Amino acid sequence: MEGKLFIYNSLKRTKEEFVAINYPYVGLYVCGPTVYGEAHLGHARPAITFDILFRLLQHLGYKVRYVRNITDVGHLENDADQGEDKIAKKARVEQLEPMEIVQLYTDNYHENMKALNVKSPSIEPRASGHIIEQQQIIQKIIDNGFAYEANGSIYFDVKKYNQTNKYGLLSGRNIDDLLENTRQLDGQEEKRASLDFALWKKAKPEHIMRWPSPWSDGFPGWHLECTAMSTKYLGETFDIHGGGLDLLFPHHECELAQSKAALGKDSVKYWMHNNMITINGQKMGKSLGNFITLKELFSGNHTLLEQAYSPMTIRFFILQAHYRSTLDFSNDALQASEKGLARLISAYKVLDGLETAEKSTYNVEELKNKCYQAILDDLNTPILIAHLFEAVKIINATKIGTEKLSKEDVSVLKQVFELFVFDILGIKIDENAGNGELLNNVVSILLNYRQKSKENKDWSTADEIRNELKEIGIIIKDSKEGFTWEME
Amino acid sequence: MEGKLFIYNSLKRTKEEFVAINYPYVGLYVCGPTVYGEAHLGHARPAITFDILFRLLQHLGYKVRYVRNITDVGHLENDADQGEDKIAKKARVEQLEPMEIVQLYTDNYHENMKALNVKSPSIEPRASGHIIEQQQIIQKIIDNGFAYEANGSIYFDVKKYNQTNKYGLLSGRNIDDLLENTRQLDGQEEKRASLDFALWKKAKPEHIMRWPSPWSDGFPGWHLECTAMSTKYLGETFDIHGGGLDLLFPHHECELAQSKAALGKDSVKYWMHNNMITINGQKMGKSLGNFITLKELFSGNHTLLEQAYSPMTIRFFILQAHYRSTLDFSNDALQASEKGLARLISAYKVLDGLETAEKSTYNVEELKNKCYQAILDDLNTPILIAHLFEAVKIINATKIGTEKLSKEDVSVLKQVFELFVFDILGIKIDENAGNGELLNNVVSILLNYRQKSKENKDWSTADEIRNELKEIGIIIKDSKEGFTWEME
Repeated sequence: MEGKLFIYNSLKRTKEEFVAINYPYVGLYVCGPTVYGEAHLGHARPAITFDILFRLLQHLGYKVRYVRNITDVGHLENDADQGEDKIAKKARVEQLEPMEIVQLYTDNYHENMKALNVKSPSIEPRASGHIIEQQQIIQKIIDNGFAYEANGSIYFDVKKYNQTNKYGLLSGRNIDDLLENTRQLDGQEEKRASLDFALWKKAKPEHIMRWPSPWSDGFPGWHLECTAMSTKYLGETFDIHGGGLDLLFPHHECELAQSKAALGKDSVKYWMHNNMITINGQKMGKSLGNFITLKELFSGNHTLLEQAYSPMTIRFFILQAHYRSTLDFSNDALQASEKGLARLISAYKVLDGLETAEKSTYNVEELKNKCYQAILDDLNTPILIAHLFEAVKIINATKIGTEKLSKEDVSVLKQVFELFVFDILGIKIDENAGNGELLNNVVSILLNYRQKSKENKDWSTADEIRNELKEIGIIIKDSKEGFTWEME
Repeated sequence: MEGKLFIYNSLKRTKEEFVAINYPYVGLYVCGPTVYGEAHLGHARPAITFDILFRLLQHLGYKVRYVRNITDVGHLENDADQGEDKIAKKARVEQLEPMEIVQLYTDNYHENMKALNVKSPSIEPRASGHIIEQQQIIQKIIDNGFAYEANGSIYFDVKKYNQTNKYGLLSGRNIDDLLENTRQLDGQEEKRASLDFALWKKAKPEHIMRWPSPWSDGFPGWHLECTAMSTKYLGETFDIHGGGLDLLFPHHECELAQSKAALGKDSVKYWMHNNMITINGQKMGKSLGNFITLKELFSGNHTLLEQAYSPMTIRFFILQAHYRSTLDFSNDALQASEKGLARLISAYKVLDGLETAEKSTYNVEELKNKCYQAILDDLNTPILIAHLFEAVKIINATKIGTEKLSKEDVSVLKQVFELFVFDILGIKIDENAGNGELLNNVVSILLNYRQKSKENKDWSTADEIRNELKEIGIIIKDSKEGFTWEME
């Protein structure tokens, strides 16, 4: 049983059945990072959320073209087209060429995503690599009457657009409220209205990142790149556009308007947004001193952290909340996830050596169906994980003999773990923790000596070996068949 | 003592002292891969060669901006502007969008380079991301009278260029010979002369990778991207341009001509070329059945391979030849490198526990100077490695007492290894081979039991432990202080 996939469509504010525009192909676009700093928790959540979707769609047999961009130009410090370009500023501070900053932090992002076992997208286009395509979209918007030029810059005319379309459609904001609540233009500005946004900005003389255009030497507005690159690689209409909830407005609202203004149609069928994270209940921010990079989490090297957390602990923790809920990071919560994940992996490892019975006392097929239902229900990973812990309970009960599992059902459980834990949730067993075949071999030799000591009634040596191993983090478990061992 | 760096300049056909154009800054441009297939030995050699140069220049205190491009458009199957785009063809065969091919093989290239411990360059620009910059260079060449249009394509006019410049300057080829030895134009061609090369190609209707231009919808010629990207990121003149010897002609010859034609100057001060590799004496080629990818080398999964070779073995092997010599891959040679590298690492590990003397019987400072001299002499890594093996000999002789080393000299030797083996040659100790602290701890416990057995004169148990460890690949070495162990 697989059943139908339902996803929450931000545009419709409801859960909808997912129906591909051009089965079996699926076009998926997700907003990637602006690469001007080290990857942090705010990067991990959308990457992992849409990694699950990518993995699930592939498992369901879709041929997915997953585009996740790199923003390397045009993202200004202030969303209202003010301030310095984020990358240019970092380049100035670190005395590097902007593209050196881009390389440094793109590498950093990739490294961290790899550690989190996030799959590489099918295409990872860069904004600066698609200047011509962005200029082509601007020209279309101008030709269709929805943009105007001012001193070499081009702005999107929100008021004009709103006469025949609805600006605010995606975010559910009311344009009149927006107009009231935004600051008045101070007369110095080129824009006709404060809601208007830049499609092309004329570069100041000192601005390094600049390209020629029919309007001025300059650079594209931030919102434009996603419209240009999604159109280029996924076509004028495509299935799913994802990103963090913080991008819903203005970024995605502007994207939607740009597509409509340029192409005359709504490009995206399903909009999906992951919710935000907090740290000990607070918004994460550099000024609040609670800004934690992924590298710091992995090393434990931050005053707020009591210990290091492995990439898989972070991944598992993120998946223990539904992507549309907020998620609060704390040491307690992370430590609970670490233990939970260890229990899950431990149960999986036990499966192979489990003593089987004629007939199971538990309905494994039903469990498998529940797992499917959970993930197909708008990627409900916390419910899926709850079902997996139910499996852990049964496995552990079978080990001590209070439940029974048939050989077939053990094999089904193994499939359940392999499919849901490893393939779809993307958990991988940390090789360092297991530390490979060689370690296994050495421990086996040592345990054989311990066994021999026991046979010779040399209890003190047997205990000594157990204690020495415990000291270095290896726990021996005596069992009927002899002994097994695991990492503390 | 560090001394002056000398490098062989292909342009002058002689070794020259390296003098930076704008000390302490160095601009280094190296031709990167055309990403339409898995990374192979032909990719490893230039990447490692210029990685050594990058590391050495940084060690010498230069601030290096290292640009290594990704060719993702414009590289046709045939250097004479004929045939399909390599990436577009692969995309057609694999039924993917060209940029999916680019992503797949860029990821593959990065993964392999990381395994080989090749540092990421400062900037890794893509040809498709610099279409505007390439068009700007074309316009300059047209304006200066060195290019002509034919049916929407733009060609470089070699004959015209040669009237005031010297085409063939870099490769040392004679233009008259070249003209005689190239096939006649068949009348169908747009080019005025067969030596002319494309700067812009008008795209056929079915060609996917295309951009608008003043001349036609099309794509840039292959040689152009390097001129555009080196100029953009390193300026109109820069220090070093590197690449494989197979690129000397026509690629680099054309680059040189393009820069001169567009900017009126020679852009590059030093041209450096690594020589080619052969496999069992033959040129590597898909049709010859001796085409080996790096992944195959690392796994041993190829009919020509007797075993797997670790990335560090490959790296060390490549460095055991001078970059300007041809290099022949064979199982025998690789196995010799594997053993050599193990001896080198083994000696380094011994250093810490070495018994020191009042006075050394060996001149360690002189050895250190010889190491510097070797690497500063046009990156003479084989000579450097020979000196390092001299150090290995002394360390091993000191261990058995036939040589003596003072405490200070042991510390100098440690620095020599850390600087030359790890920092400059870029060798890293394979954690899997050592297998981490935990493995170390378990082996220690086991060896303590063996020691106890010996103390109890239980020789059979002591031998048994030794043999059992040997079976799983761990060799115990008894010494005065007790024992050490290493991987077989």
